[in-house]
Amino acid sequence: MPRPRNDTFLRACLREPTDYTPLWLMRQAGRYLPEYNATRARAGSFMGLATNPDYATEVTLQPLARYALDAAILFSDILTVPDAMGLGLTFAAGEGPRFASPLRDEAAVAALRVPDLERLRYVFDAVRSIRRALADSVPLIGFAGSPWTLACYMVEGAGSDDYRLVKSMLYARPDLMHRILEVNAQAVAAYLNAQIAAGAQAVMLFDSWGGVLADGAFQRFSLEYTRRVVHALMREHEGERVPCIVFTKGGAPWLEEIAACGADVVGLDWTANLGRARQRVDDRVALQGNLDPAVLFAPPTVVAAQARAVLDGFGSPRRADGRWGGHVFNLGHGINQHTPPEHVTALVEAVHAHSRALRRAT
Amino acid sequence: MPRPRNDTFLRACLREPTDYTPLWLMRQAGRYLPEYNATRARAGSFMGLATNPDYATEVTLQPLARYALDAAILFSDILTVPDAMGLGLTFAAGEGPRFASPLRDEAAVAALRVPDLERLRYVFDAVRSIRRALADSVPLIGFAGSPWTLACYMVEGAGSDDYRLVKSMLYARPDLMHRILEVNAQAVAAYLNAQIAAGAQAVMLFDSWGGVLADGAFQRFSLEYTRRVVHALMREHEGERVPCIVFTKGGAPWLEEIAACGADVVGLDWTANLGRARQRVDDRVALQGNLDPAVLFAPPTVVAAQARAVLDGFGSPRRADGRWGGHVFNLGHGINQHTPPEHVTALVEAVHAHSRALRRAT
Repeated sequence: MPRPRNDTFLRACLREPTDYTPLWLMRQAGRYLPEYNATRARAGSFMGLATNPDYATEVTLQPLARYALDAAILFSDILTVPDAMGLGLTFAAGEGPRFASPLRDEAAVAALRVPDLERLRYVFDAVRSIRRALADSVPLIGFAGSPWTLACYMVEGAGSDDYRLVKSMLYARPDLMHRILEVNAQAVAAYLNAQIAAGAQAVMLFDSWGGVLADGAFQRFSLEYTRRVVHALMREHEGERVPCIVFTKGGAPWLEEIAACGADVVGLDWTANLGRARQRVDDRVALQGNLDPAVLFAPPTVVAAQARAVLDGFGSPRRADGRWGGHVFNLGHGINQHTPPEHVTALVEAVHAHSRALRRAT
Repeated sequence: MPRPRNDTFLRACLREPTDYTPLWLMRQAGRYLPEYNATRARAGSFMGLATNPDYATEVTLQPLARYALDAAILFSDILTVPDAMGLGLTFAAGEGPRFASPLRDEAAVAALRVPDLERLRYVFDAVRSIRRALADSVPLIGFAGSPWTLACYMVEGAGSDDYRLVKSMLYARPDLMHRILEVNAQAVAAYLNAQIAAGAQAVMLFDSWGGVLADGAFQRFSLEYTRRVVHALMREHEGERVPCIVFTKGGAPWLEEIAACGADVVGLDWTANLGRARQRVDDRVALQGNLDPAVLFAPPTVVAAQARAVLDGFGSPRRADGRWGGHVFNLGHGINQHTPPEHVTALVEAVHAHSRALRRAT
């Protein structure tokens, strides 16, 4: 399996020298793009898109046709895994996801099993289809939700603003919570390894709700299971390293601990200062992030200035001691559906141009 | 004006020796208490409670009748200030607050003025009434929203999950945002000083939405205006120090900077490790927090164990060098309306008993 012609993203993940800072955007194939909305209308629903490899391929490639992005990311959803476990996922119009059978009692938790990966075959088919369509232009990132983040949805049955049910279980019945997390960790590791086997050239774990946990609980109920997944991953496939990214929204307080979980890259939201973050981890991992997606509502000149500020915050990836730090530019969270698409053009140009200039200056 | 008979809270704020760790709970007078709901039903609405000094006094004292709390907090809302500015606050049933006239254009921002404090007289009347009712038993805390947090509501017109409007203004028209924040800072300082003059014995600034800002933007648009408020406050009244608490939800990444804003106490949410936080600020300020309110859904034995863990995390306030650190026990956010009231009893007892034991052990 050859490296893609543009391997800047992979090199930055592995802290190898690069000519510029690569970028991709969380949720880059999404509702801010008119062509995405057109495909989604044809597919009928979000899961109609995600479960059809042709549609999934089409929308995955849409942002790459518009922008000089340095990676593609599989079009899918983190909730495919609990759906395959039999929890019954639906997306009601105008609402978020909902599970018909959330985990609310001991019997439901005891019955939880690692799903047959055959039920997720549409995902691996999509990975193969996207790889063919990309034709080794840029790498493809696979992904999954972290065991804790999946557990939040599986217990709450939907999004939540206080996480009352899942935190009640965590504090009152930690034994049940640990069982869910153990099953999730095994399922997520198997799921990501199957994505790698199908052709994903990097994988990312989204711990979207790790940051709602208290210090102490985060380490025991989120990070520990993320660590188990990371350690169970294939890190090389067909002779190439497969970088692993861990992103914890709100995880800045625990950066050093997250950086020690075995991942190659730690994703940061916009509350982190990249320069300080880099000092804290001493470039032992690469960093991904961290522009506030709300910056993209501002005019293109402001977008460019704010992008340059993020790059300047990280500084030159080349260190005085000859080693390289790694920086993958991204937003600190998914791109907002109200983003004007032309502002993304300004972002991509600014990141590529300014990061080349930074390297020349140092 | 004499110190209250129980001045443990004030002493902890000022890092003076205490026999035990004082506690109070954000939103301690609230919907988890049946007696609160009964009074609210009589008052007809939330603002009916807040604008009537008799009702405000009644609900402020309700949690103190149930629990051995070490401070009372004025029953009010942070949005009284923008309401007095003429933005037209309403609380629709089952929804959050809403402003009839949010700040959406240059003309609205230019017309914004520091309100006549006479329009907030009901608040100062409530402070006087509560002080009389407390009869110097425990101190009374006054409060206000931070300039940034108020601006979020004033521009969005309601709660938000992406802060699109206020962040768009911040990035696209920072001049308008700075004007709002400057007016808010003057208004909040005058409002808190009037609360102090009426008898508030400590004041707290709630920067509930500071944590949604990006690094850099937080310092310029939130912390800078919090700092201006803190520096404009009366810090002594009738011969007694009036401690000032600053609480930034999600503020852990910026702890050192927040601690340098001039406040006596920094409030922390549950993502912070109190022991590490204490090292970071070297006890130059007291810390308030930081139990996850969700712990209170668990059985009383778990509540007590988690409370002890928070106290142990802070450690003994007595330092080896003879100085004292200050810890005010609190939740990391407001108490949840679904909290069983008897679990709060277990919390109060555990905090008082274990913090006395900690002092004996060291």
